[in-house]
Amino acid sequence: MKPEHSAFSGSRALVTGGLGFIGSNLALRLVELGVEVTVVDSLIPEYGGNPYNLAGLAGGVSINITDVRDEHAMKYLVQRQDYLFNLAGQTSHLDSMTDPFPDLEINARAQLSILESCRRFNPSIRIVFASTRQLYGKPRYTPVDENHPLDPVDVNGINKLAGEQYHLLYHRVHGVRASVLRLTNTYGPRMRVKDARQTFLGIWLRRLLEGQPIAVFGDGQQIRDFNYVDDAVEALLLAASRDEAYGEVFNLGASDPASLETVARLLVQLSGTGRYELVPFPAERKAIDIGDYVGDYGKFERLLGWRPRVMLAEGLAKTLAYYRSHGHHYWEPTGALVAA
Amino acid sequence: MKPEHSAFSGSRALVTGGLGFIGSNLALRLVELGVEVTVVDSLIPEYGGNPYNLAGLAGGVSINITDVRDEHAMKYLVQRQDYLFNLAGQTSHLDSMTDPFPDLEINARAQLSILESCRRFNPSIRIVFASTRQLYGKPRYTPVDENHPLDPVDVNGINKLAGEQYHLLYHRVHGVRASVLRLTNTYGPRMRVKDARQTFLGIWLRRLLEGQPIAVFGDGQQIRDFNYVDDAVEALLLAASRDEAYGEVFNLGASDPASLETVARLLVQLSGTGRYELVPFPAERKAIDIGDYVGDYGKFERLLGWRPRVMLAEGLAKTLAYYRSHGHHYWEPTGALVAA
Repeated sequence: MKPEHSAFSGSRALVTGGLGFIGSNLALRLVELGVEVTVVDSLIPEYGGNPYNLAGLAGGVSINITDVRDEHAMKYLVQRQDYLFNLAGQTSHLDSMTDPFPDLEINARAQLSILESCRRFNPSIRIVFASTRQLYGKPRYTPVDENHPLDPVDVNGINKLAGEQYHLLYHRVHGVRASVLRLTNTYGPRMRVKDARQTFLGIWLRRLLEGQPIAVFGDGQQIRDFNYVDDAVEALLLAASRDEAYGEVFNLGASDPASLETVARLLVQLSGTGRYELVPFPAERKAIDIGDYVGDYGKFERLLGWRPRVMLAEGLAKTLAYYRSHGHHYWEPTGALVAA
Repeated sequence: MKPEHSAFSGSRALVTGGLGFIGSNLALRLVELGVEVTVVDSLIPEYGGNPYNLAGLAGGVSINITDVRDEHAMKYLVQRQDYLFNLAGQTSHLDSMTDPFPDLEINARAQLSILESCRRFNPSIRIVFASTRQLYGKPRYTPVDENHPLDPVDVNGINKLAGEQYHLLYHRVHGVRASVLRLTNTYGPRMRVKDARQTFLGIWLRRLLEGQPIAVFGDGQQIRDFNYVDDAVEALLLAASRDEAYGEVFNLGASDPASLETVARLLVQLSGTGRYELVPFPAERKAIDIGDYVGDYGKFERLLGWRPRVMLAEGLAKTLAYYRSHGHHYWEPTGALVAA
């Protein structure tokens, strides 16, 4: 299956969080598909935006630096768009617990405000909202399907849930075409690797490239599923363009879930150097840890034919290669071992 | 079972929304139990607050007019309290759809802000959050228990869900003792009867007392369960004071659910005059109608021994009697037939 996505050609799309990890990969793909892309990003330093992510596209995409909390900017920007890929978010679970209000403003209030603007000024737009498997909380069974009870374990999860519910509501009540994807751990080129704020894989990879040991929390036996970013991008395209998707929530997921220790070992193997070590859970992470998670993406596969194409070893190898070449655009070297 | 609630004697309690329907009935009961009560109310005209509700208590309760969105006021007011009955809310489903932001600010953001203040300045407080059965959306089965999927049908439901999740989270992660009650249709003395903003029973009752026909939407066969306010107050006391309640969500409910037409007929019978008529659903109400609803309160009964004591006919009779005597404090007479 290699969907053509010819419907996108000549259309206009807005990507919020478009200088971030998934947003920039999506923007690149959209441009490839002949889409006139506008990217919105706040460039808040702690978040995922990095101008380098789209540096290769100079002139091929319109970049608008603003915050999704800026109602007036967003009201203007959603107009005349065919698609809205609504990816901007506060993603740090820890930050949401220490300072819950920015999370609420970005993940809940701004979403409502964007939807109001779409309803009033561009009701024929098609929207995908990037949500998260975190909404399920500690899984009561695996693989977790979309009927699994929702039980967010942190403020971030609660606000993301409100965000996705607004989207579904605006579809149901106001007819705004919106779908929701619950992403699992996504990784790949252009992710934040400076620290663990976006994904633990970021800091693992950076430490590996810097010749420092990877720290695996707990006994390393927690299971996760990982999507290479190209598979997540393909999911976003399907969810934005197919009539069957609107009003629906879909899990993403992987066919090869793995334990954290397995991933660490694989990264070390693939890089040909380095090591990992098991370290006790920091208390503030333990409080919001969810144990094993494996998502069931059967609904998305049945309705829209999506399944992940890139296996973990292949994706990690590509990711390592990317940061070996481009790492210096993602973090300040701190040691002598940076390969750049 | 007549619990003594002796634990309350000599304690201090804050009741948000305390000039409103349920809040004022609760405040009256708390004073009876020997509690030093502070009431917070915004007196926003469209909401449920009415100074007359506590007029009989002059001096026996401290009344603080402010809005729960006022962070600084709330930060001060939650201190030195033993209990917080967190009842203030934007309750209009229709308003939440036409102007969603006040609903978000009151039902979600202010809740988070109150909880932050409790965590920081009064972590040993005990909190009950008044939530709503609306979170379940259109029931997939009845009676609806607490494991029923959550699927709010309007912005109000989404924000109330976030509000209750914040409470549960602050219990789980920060150890703040909080419980959540999902109230169903509550009625009784001191409810808003000026219009249908709080409950359709309000406007029904007023129209009946004004000699106008009660308008029942649709075919009148939708089933609801109704709690007389004294039963809801008893539930709040239990949920605030028992260790088994913290971190839990409980449905309320009734043992005598009834169709809307049955309730209308009963009201007409009890009042000895008047009539009802079936009228088509207004479009904006139809869009957020949920069909039949009956709540399963078995969990609350098993864990805390609560069950409703006042049957519908008895409760409606008491309510009618209250508004016959006190109705002029609740609405401006518009016709000649007001019994006051």
